[in-house]
Amino acid sequence: MDKDNAAPSGEERLIARYFGPLATHPGAFGLADDAAVIAPPAGCDLVLKTDGIVGGVHFFPDDPPDAVAQKALRVNLSDLAAKAAKPLGFLLTLALPQEIGDAWLAPFARGLGADADLFGCPLLGGDTDRTGGPITISIAVFGAVPHGRMVRRAGAKAGDRVLVTGTIGDAALGLLLRRDAAAAGRWGLARDQQEHLLSRYLVPQPRTAIAEALGVHASAAMDVSDGLAGDLAKLCRVSAVAAEVEVERVPLSGAARAALASEPALIETIITGGDDYEVLACAPANEVAALRRAAAAVGIAMTEIGTVAAGQGQARFVDARGKPLALARPAFSHF
Amino acid sequence: MDKDNAAPSGEERLIARYFGPLATHPGAFGLADDAAVIAPPAGCDLVLKTDGIVGGVHFFPDDPPDAVAQKALRVNLSDLAAKAAKPLGFLLTLALPQEIGDAWLAPFARGLGADADLFGCPLLGGDTDRTGGPITISIAVFGAVPHGRMVRRAGAKAGDRVLVTGTIGDAALGLLLRRDAAAAGRWGLARDQQEHLLSRYLVPQPRTAIAEALGVHASAAMDVSDGLAGDLAKLCRVSAVAAEVEVERVPLSGAARAALASEPALIETIITGGDDYEVLACAPANEVAALRRAAAAVGIAMTEIGTVAAGQGQARFVDARGKPLALARPAFSHF
Repeated sequence: MDKDNAAPSGEERLIARYFGPLATHPGAFGLADDAAVIAPPAGCDLVLKTDGIVGGVHFFPDDPPDAVAQKALRVNLSDLAAKAAKPLGFLLTLALPQEIGDAWLAPFARGLGADADLFGCPLLGGDTDRTGGPITISIAVFGAVPHGRMVRRAGAKAGDRVLVTGTIGDAALGLLLRRDAAAAGRWGLARDQQEHLLSRYLVPQPRTAIAEALGVHASAAMDVSDGLAGDLAKLCRVSAVAAEVEVERVPLSGAARAALASEPALIETIITGGDDYEVLACAPANEVAALRRAAAAVGIAMTEIGTVAAGQGQARFVDARGKPLALARPAFSHF
Repeated sequence: MDKDNAAPSGEERLIARYFGPLATHPGAFGLADDAAVIAPPAGCDLVLKTDGIVGGVHFFPDDPPDAVAQKALRVNLSDLAAKAAKPLGFLLTLALPQEIGDAWLAPFARGLGADADLFGCPLLGGDTDRTGGPITISIAVFGAVPHGRMVRRAGAKAGDRVLVTGTIGDAALGLLLRRDAAAAGRWGLARDQQEHLLSRYLVPQPRTAIAEALGVHASAAMDVSDGLAGDLAKLCRVSAVAAEVEVERVPLSGAARAALASEPALIETIITGGDDYEVLACAPANEVAALRRAAAAVGIAMTEIGTVAAGQGQARFVDARGKPLALARPAFSHF
């Protein structure tokens, strides 16, 4: 018994082999303790967020495991960025079906480790379990923000401008392409345009670099994960304001513009589809130029798309003549 | 569109109805933001832990939803206690099959809220998703410990004593009873003895009250979740010591003693079965009395069961004559 008992279990070996090397923070103890410990940065608040992704719901079972890992971490980093917080580290819970072995875990851990390095967000701890269902990955991420400076959803005021980073709708169009490859032909997309849309669905680009500028200039912010229309409505509800967005100002990639030109009804997918992981922000009119400059300085385009007015949560999308766009389904919801 | 767009989605309604009332911490913003914010207590380190439970793996699909919620939170609180940390709050990720509705969610949220109150550990944020698999609940919990005072697994030294809280083996026997109700007859258990074992499996009792005393007196500690034998071996490996436990000193409930008397082979289930959620601690010989007194003062029995010696991770269980117990399977592992 001594011999067996002194040998690590299968779970310990799995953790030591794949995830121990990612636990570079000294307070993670190489994942050989029950918990991690960190000394919070002086003068800072902690920003806490959890988001899970489920196979067959948020990703395709045949997605590359490294991309699945990146998505799992990045959807959380996107929230931290929108809240003006700098990443400190994360906890991982993995529930794995029996058939998942080294062939999946090795690239998953590699992708996770690469992103942990890239975003300065080390693995602090985790838990691995078996499940009778699909791969289920839950990440809890912690960030730091100067005391009292977290940017909330509440805070937008009448007169503020509405801005958004990057481009909107790419991931939702990429998801359509994943489900219906023939759409690329109908939309007349070039190869690189297809790949752009597919990659935007597969691996989000969290706007971590803009966090500090948001903390200085934004009155309210959130990340766009459930569609621009629905997420802007959420922000307006908790801010107790209304917003009007000019649809033609919403920034689109070349690929999205090409698809939209051949199928105008795609505007609904673009505005409501979700998985953008861009930052939606409101800022006082006199802060807009400084916010856009600060974003540009870190390589992030930030586009003014509308205005905030008095109201009770309405998010109105209008065309160039001020006519409201009719959307059948304003926001994505699993429920 | 204005009207629809201003209305919350199904997911928002679910969160607002069941989980919003639990988000009593001001930094949780009633779950109406992307993230939570907390000001870490001055002079403290943060202790971080995540643990998930999966339907059909860690609990039975027909377990009462309030008990499932309690188990999900308490397995994490048990780790905080063993690390000498006081709970600050938690994040929840829920992946729910389509058939889960109000009849399950209402008692689940009620059980979770009751425990959040009982243990002073408020819900800070969460995420709900649909899954094609079983109910999957992941919790990340945060605690505070005076700077530098987290009790680690590493730290046990030759000459230390090994102690354990409460009683060992009840939950593993309770699980056997769940799977084979006839065992109660074979073991000659009274009704209240059966109920004791079943309830110990269903709802763990985290030893939160002992956290502070561990921080003062223990050299190493962990919670016993994968069986006393395997978990003691883990502690010994990272502490680079060996331990010898006298099996007859391992504290057993009346129910476990009754079962063991009629079926002596159950000693293996008791020592290796898991789900105890007791605290296993090592302490210098001259701290043992003070640790046991401090535990007794908060109503927790703490029993000395063995000694630490030089070694490389061995955890030996011996009978009254010093003969090693032969265990077929030293520790529970899902892998």
